[in-house]
Amino acid sequence: MRPIGKKIWVIPEGYLPKNALSYGRRFISHETACIINPNSSDAKINIHIYYKDRDPVGPYKITVPAMRIFHLRFNELSDPQPIPEDTDYSSIFYSNQPIVVQHTRLDSRRDDIALLSSIAYGE
Amino acid sequence: MRPIGKKIWVIPEGYLPKNALSYGRRFISHETACIINPNSSDAKINIHIYYKDRDPVGPYKITVPAMRIFHLRFNELSDPQPIPEDTDYSSIFYSNQPIVVQHTRLDSRRDDIALLSSIAYGE
Amino acid sequence: MRPIGKKIWVIPEGYLPKNALSYGRRFISHETACIINPNSSDAKINIHIYYKDRDPVGPYKITVPAMRIFHLRFNELSDPQPIPEDTDYSSIFYSNQPIVVQHTRLDSRRDDIALLSSIAYGE
Amino acid sequence: MRPIGKKIWVIPEGYLPKNALSYGRRFISHETACIINPNSSDAKINIHIYYKDRDPVGPYKITVPAMRIFHLRFNELSDPQPIPEDTDYSSIFYSNQPIVVQHTRLDSRRDDIALLSSIAYGE
Repeated sequence: MRPIGKKIWVIPEGYLPKNALSYGRRFISHETACIINPNSSDAKINIHIYYKDRDPVGPYKITVPAMRIFHLRFNELSDPQPIPEDTDYSSIFYSNQPIVVQHTRLDSRRDDIALLSSIAYGE
Repeated sequence: MRPIGKKIWVIPEGYLPKNALSYGRRFISHETACIINPNSSDAKINIHIYYKDRDPVGPYKITVPAMRIFHLRFNELSDPQPIPEDTDYSSIFYSNQPIVVQHTRLDSRRDDIALLSSIAYGE
Repeated sequence: MRPIGKKIWVIPEGYLPKNALSYGRRFISHETACIINPNSSDAKINIHIYYKDRDPVGPYKITVPAMRIFHLRFNELSDPQPIPEDTDYSSIFYSNQPIVVQHTRLDSRRDDIALLSSIAYGE
Repeated sequence: MRPIGKKIWVIPEGYLPKNALSYGRRFISHETACIINPNSSDAKINIHIYYKDRDPVGPYKITVPAMRIFHLRFNELSDPQPIPEDTDYSSIFYSNQPIVVQHTRLDSRRDDIALLSSIAYGE
């Protein structure tokens, strides 16, 4: 079967709110990249974070095994360095295998939650 | 007329909240795949659910008749097995006819509702 | 300049809530198709509405003049017949000129509002 | 490395709410175009705003340096003229270098916030 997906994915929108309200980990404000690797080889993925006023940072390295998924929370990235809160950023994913990436944010800064989502831009 | 749509659709984001608030079925938290088959033949669709830590499950089989739509709620899938709550998953739709798929979530865990939506990734 | 856009657009998700709360017309729950015709000829558009259990209805005819936009509210369609409330539907736009279509819902059934949006599927 | 992105981007949906509630600048209702220029040359971008009842306005000129991002708030555009509040509009981005654009709205008119987002339509 032909592999499904693309090797480069771009998420222009990125923002980690500061001092978010929380009702347990599930309700902490978070910015997520949902990644599926539906193919038969592990996907080694290099993530680069882009900013407005300084050089890109990366690669952040993750592996999504064959036939598995991974819901990456951007605020849990730490190596080479955490993404600062309250700062606009964008992200690019370079994978050695085709994958599919969807971007989701849960925002719980106000009393209730808000959600946004979009399939990322793939090439 | 040329058929409209594609035969493979991917939704990387998937999550069924647990113990969601409810104000009647319309307000129960749900994750939906809205499927349209605008063409002249019935679409037989096999859905496979992918997880982080175990093998994919499927196929879940549905049919969307010619010139009809179906708004599938993931929490109502049962055969071969229900999707567990509070667990990240992704889904892939393989159809024998071109279709178009859009992903929507209504989240009513807090007092008010939140919505997200994206056209799925098609190939 | 080469025309921008595509001639066929599909929105699989569609739902008009019943008895929505309202704080003036801007806050009435609505399902919108935002259409831009950035080209030099008027776009004559035929919209067909698809259902789960009955034949498609249409065409609903609209014209978006050259270099103009139109934010169509589905609940304001009336000819050949209104879309029933509390019923799943999908829509397909056939234009004689390239256009671009984005789908947006504002849901005000609960005390606060929720929003979703996605660029439609174009061919 | 091959440049990433496209040179033309369209956002059919646009609307700046009037008299929005505010809890500081981060919570002011806003409509944003998140732009990433991941390539090695600066991107000079001309934005044109389209309306329902009058001629398009533009170009609004911005530059996104090589390897940098910019999260543009439409309500901060002023030259040649601000976008009026409470008015439907659409936007088209013409860049001399490939970029990627994502559309996001934060709506704080009611007590809580709502979010929507979609990758723009690229050509």
